[in-house]
Amino acid sequence: MNRFFNTQHAPVGAHASLTLGFPGARGGMDLELCGAPGQSVLVALESAQQPGVFETLPFCEPPDDAERQRFVSDQGDSHLGASGLGARLFALDEVQREFSLGTDRWQAGDLRFTLYTPVRDLPDPDACAPLDAMRAFVPAVRAEIEVDNRAGTRARRVAVGLSGIDPLRGLRHLVLGDRADGIGIGDGLEQGFATDAPGAWSGIGFDPLAVLGDRHQSNRGSMLGGWGLVCAEVPAGERRTLRFAFCFHRAGVITGGIATRQLYNRWFDSVESVARFALSDFDEAVQASRAADARLAASALSAAQRFTVAHATRSYLYSTQLLERDGRALWVVNEGEYNMLNTLDLVADHSLYEGLHHPWTVRNVLDQYAAGYSYEDEDGVSFTHDMGVDGIFAPPGRSAYERAGLTGCFSQMTTEELLNWTLCAGLYAHQGRDLAWARRHAALLERCLQSLERRDNPEPAQRNGVPRADSSRCEGGREITTYDCLDPSLGQAAGNTYIAGKAWAAYVILQQLFVQLDRPALAERAHQQARRAAATVVAATRADGLIPALLEAPDDDAVILPVIEALAYPWFAGCRDALAPDGEYAPYLAALKRHMSEHVLREDTCLFADGGWRITSRSDNTFPAKAYVCQFVAREILQMPLGTVGTRADEAHAAWQLHPDLSVHCWSEQVKNGLVFAAKYYPRGVSSQIWLTEG
Amino acid sequence: MNRFFNTQHAPVGAHASLTLGFPGARGGMDLELCGAPGQSVLVALESAQQPGVFETLPFCEPPDDAERQRFVSDQGDSHLGASGLGARLFALDEVQREFSLGTDRWQAGDLRFTLYTPVRDLPDPDACAPLDAMRAFVPAVRAEIEVDNRAGTRARRVAVGLSGIDPLRGLRHLVLGDRADGIGIGDGLEQGFATDAPGAWSGIGFDPLAVLGDRHQSNRGSMLGGWGLVCAEVPAGERRTLRFAFCFHRAGVITGGIATRQLYNRWFDSVESVARFALSDFDEAVQASRAADARLAASALSAAQRFTVAHATRSYLYSTQLLERDGRALWVVNEGEYNMLNTLDLVADHSLYEGLHHPWTVRNVLDQYAAGYSYEDEDGVSFTHDMGVDGIFAPPGRSAYERAGLTGCFSQMTTEELLNWTLCAGLYAHQGRDLAWARRHAALLERCLQSLERRDNPEPAQRNGVPRADSSRCEGGREITTYDCLDPSLGQAAGNTYIAGKAWAAYVILQQLFVQLDRPALAERAHQQARRAAATVVAATRADGLIPALLEAPDDDAVILPVIEALAYPWFAGCRDALAPDGEYAPYLAALKRHMSEHVLREDTCLFADGGWRITSRSDNTFPAKAYVCQFVAREILQMPLGTVGTRADEAHAAWQLHPDLSVHCWSEQVKNGLVFAAKYYPRGVSSQIWLTEG
Repeated sequence: MNRFFNTQHAPVGAHASLTLGFPGARGGMDLELCGAPGQSVLVALESAQQPGVFETLPFCEPPDDAERQRFVSDQGDSHLGASGLGARLFALDEVQREFSLGTDRWQAGDLRFTLYTPVRDLPDPDACAPLDAMRAFVPAVRAEIEVDNRAGTRARRVAVGLSGIDPLRGLRHLVLGDRADGIGIGDGLEQGFATDAPGAWSGIGFDPLAVLGDRHQSNRGSMLGGWGLVCAEVPAGERRTLRFAFCFHRAGVITGGIATRQLYNRWFDSVESVARFALSDFDEAVQASRAADARLAASALSAAQRFTVAHATRSYLYSTQLLERDGRALWVVNEGEYNMLNTLDLVADHSLYEGLHHPWTVRNVLDQYAAGYSYEDEDGVSFTHDMGVDGIFAPPGRSAYERAGLTGCFSQMTTEELLNWTLCAGLYAHQGRDLAWARRHAALLERCLQSLERRDNPEPAQRNGVPRADSSRCEGGREITTYDCLDPSLGQAAGNTYIAGKAWAAYVILQQLFVQLDRPALAERAHQQARRAAATVVAATRADGLIPALLEAPDDDAVILPVIEALAYPWFAGCRDALAPDGEYAPYLAALKRHMSEHVLREDTCLFADGGWRITSRSDNTFPAKAYVCQFVAREILQMPLGTVGTRADEAHAAWQLHPDLSVHCWSEQVKNGLVFAAKYYPRGVSSQIWLTEG
Repeated sequence: MNRFFNTQHAPVGAHASLTLGFPGARGGMDLELCGAPGQSVLVALESAQQPGVFETLPFCEPPDDAERQRFVSDQGDSHLGASGLGARLFALDEVQREFSLGTDRWQAGDLRFTLYTPVRDLPDPDACAPLDAMRAFVPAVRAEIEVDNRAGTRARRVAVGLSGIDPLRGLRHLVLGDRADGIGIGDGLEQGFATDAPGAWSGIGFDPLAVLGDRHQSNRGSMLGGWGLVCAEVPAGERRTLRFAFCFHRAGVITGGIATRQLYNRWFDSVESVARFALSDFDEAVQASRAADARLAASALSAAQRFTVAHATRSYLYSTQLLERDGRALWVVNEGEYNMLNTLDLVADHSLYEGLHHPWTVRNVLDQYAAGYSYEDEDGVSFTHDMGVDGIFAPPGRSAYERAGLTGCFSQMTTEELLNWTLCAGLYAHQGRDLAWARRHAALLERCLQSLERRDNPEPAQRNGVPRADSSRCEGGREITTYDCLDPSLGQAAGNTYIAGKAWAAYVILQQLFVQLDRPALAERAHQQARRAAATVVAATRADGLIPALLEAPDDDAVILPVIEALAYPWFAGCRDALAPDGEYAPYLAALKRHMSEHVLREDTCLFADGGWRITSRSDNTFPAKAYVCQFVAREILQMPLGTVGTRADEAHAAWQLHPDLSVHCWSEQVKNGLVFAAKYYPRGVSSQIWLTEG
């Protein structure tokens, strides 16, 4: 398996990452770039055998002399001194990697480099002690370099550096309070790294070797050139661990439409202050990172599954952004490379994880939708697809994405998003143990029920439990689903059995909520609709067990996987009775199970040649995060023993993300015939975290 | 002459520009990018003959469908509707341009597009009425579009738009207070444009024609896609002028090392507030722009000279940045593409202009150097080469640029910068009529005199008036001059007759200052040194009239132009007596004049084949801004009738900047054999403004 894949080392809520793992200058510090930055990251140790030669992890490229030449023009006599030093990149086969959820470690020669990113339950910063919030949300990635120089006969230098990528501001020398607190390099005002290693010094220049080898100490203060580094020494006969913090800090209003700032500005006013905290509070982060590793290691998951959980969770964490509006926390998960804000069809997937580890973020997003991004069309209430894009909030009641007059991509997702909000509301009320919240939103929940009913049919007698209308916002177009770029078997919303499954789940959840809220009449309406939806799907199932993708096209042979997807919501919303194989919905669940085993998991329909799962038999394009949910549903809810079909899928899904070239994009959500091609750097795969609840 | 050259339309002090003029997407809105941004700028009018066809100025390129495809992936049915519209770029020969100092106008068909950038005396924002400061420093460029639809039989649409280039934030719809105040498009949070044209609307999409042609008005609120535009109409039978403002706004701390913000944040908190002011206070800017044009037109300058003044001044204005530190104005001129802060060897050139139009900025920079960027080496006081780079201020007493141990580029400029500070001090005290300032700095001025004397020779008896030492900061290297990238004829500081000329000028100025400050002993010391410097140069002049470049190499045939350059400083500092051809320094001035006429202005030395001037006979690389100063000195101070040698030079210098390809870089300062190759987008050419004082 390729071990040189990029992954995000992301502080929670900062929309930032030290992305690393792919050879060359293909990672780096990413603050809201939404893609691998293309920065050289130097992690080097002076050779024991060849003093003056820096052996280097393979994450950087030699400096380009063009930057120096731009100043020098004519004269060739300004080579800034031959350094007398050399560099050698470790060959890839000399480099080992141990990759897990909270730590990522490279070892080569006498050099060991570990990055720590705690993955854990997150406190609500408006309700917890400041230190807990600072620890959870400090926008820094800790790193350790261990050098074993016990056998060495002379001091060996360690160099850590990077090529500047701030498009406007230069590299700068960081001093944290007192020099003893630490020094480092800032890349512009908003990112940089620092160390508290004793005796470390910083330098800036055109070429890291020239900086390291300059015999004039006074030149360390120079500022021209695209490389910054810090240098520290490990004495002969010692084994030392040097600590570093890669830090981000963005001040001021950073969003349009709604003015917000990064919440961490409550405690940190600069990269320096972030670095001071990160270095002084180092151990707790290391322990939390190791604890995350231990939880993953203790699971019953296979190696391929553990890789997927660790890798996908990192992409999710990158996309998180904890903002502050009017003094209160505002949670955003950005949509990977597409960078839409809190895209609601992804919120549904993320909430499966967030509900387990920080349900308050689900509430936060649901409240944002309720207050600003709900709307009424001719059938009643719904919610927008997203809240804006690229840091610009959309106007109230509007998304960045949706347009009128279309039948494919960019059309309205009114039904899908109404269902998503409802499902997440039930999930939150249960996992957040917050019925008071549901009570505050009781009127809206009732409107959701009514809107769902009307989208089924305005005439109660005509209802079958499945939404079949297209929103009046389509203005003659047709609604789509989250599978927007696929063919109608999953792309069309109206009468889709994927949507039917979500509607059933939403009604089951609404029934439970209204019971808990002591609204029996509403509960009974929801119950009736759930029964209708289940019955409609059962009735539409063909004699051979195939559940058609579209109710309106019963003879179409398209086979879709996500017809089972929505079972996850009642499962995590506490409606386990509805999922009992011998319960009220037994025929429905049996139909789904048969559809899965006899029609989906076949090489001529939804299995790729490598065993990976297709979302629809109609497309070579699949959405792994959705497959992860369906894998969980099949194994855990439908109790299907998948055997080698399951293990082959897990291995294929991992292999897709480990492609030797395409793994530069970190975890990605659109894969065509095993090749990542869109939705790169994407958060949705965190859905795989629910696997940790299995068994 | 090529009329499709890029030039900066720059609000003063914003380090920003709407750069435009080069065909294609090669200009655009530049906020601190220090180079042409590569943005499409759409300025289009619907054809009278072909309704639905938008005729467009040649400053944009068709949209790249890749951005839409990134979302759409598989499905081909989301073309967002065929717009039914067309676009036609005007052919270059259909487009006329009138280019001047304050206005720049294109005309094609029935479309007339004018950009206004007032060039004028600037008030001190810490001492003037707020409205005057707001008018001077509002970070906006006004534009007018005039459409003559008097012969039209139907309304014609005007579209103005741009492709988004903010690397992080998306395009957004701007609404200025009330919609009637104006609407527009923001490109992220920091730039955008707006109009108060009645009925105008904004749209965002992947393709401007698709936005213009979308029959669903509800889609105008969509936010995906890389194009934003506004659309307005001109009714049939009318001639209308539509007003636009291209606006910049950067909030918060924007510099490192020293924390500063843009001073305009005193009055404006957003792009929207900038736009509101710019549109509501439009006429005054138009009048001021026209007044600048009128001053230039009223001069005796040739067309080539007028072009140079207008074009070079725009590049200077782009590089200006009015910051605020602790509530007080802090003036910075950035160094074009090199982007160093207040580079002191450029301050010397800029002060020739600033002294005439806003001497307070010279004082502001001199005070910054005195307080933070002076230092002592073994010979006494001097000043750093710069204050930092790319928005990062250097530590006190250090520059971004200078390093120890070198003999060429990046070496120390101790002598050059000591001279520059001294020359500018004299210039400011005279032009700012501020002897009180000189009095406050009397001790520093005395230290400057002493430092200059010691760099001549620590032993008074050994002095010859010419600095010949290399600073102890060189640590064994050798000092260089502002001509850092040239050969030693101009690159070496010690004993250079270019430096000798500056030393003479500095002593003349110090003598005057000390007389005014009633310090006769110091005045006499300065006087003595001035006499020595002049005598040394006269004595070094060879029998054939050649003044050697280096005193230490009297037999070297290198011929340098800037030996006369420094005469400009006593001229503008009020020391006209010293420049009288029959005065105290008559032999010195005669020697310079003879050197110019008999050795410099020859095709085998300092004249290029096209008549342009070389800085040194030793290099094909020349610095036009320095030639401009020397042209002034030759014509106005040395009273040399240049005749066709002068006019050919002016035309060659203009032609260099108008190169059909290289003029994408706006005014540039390093030209090799007529081809711009470095120091692009550079402020220094504003030195040509002194031509307007001639005659």
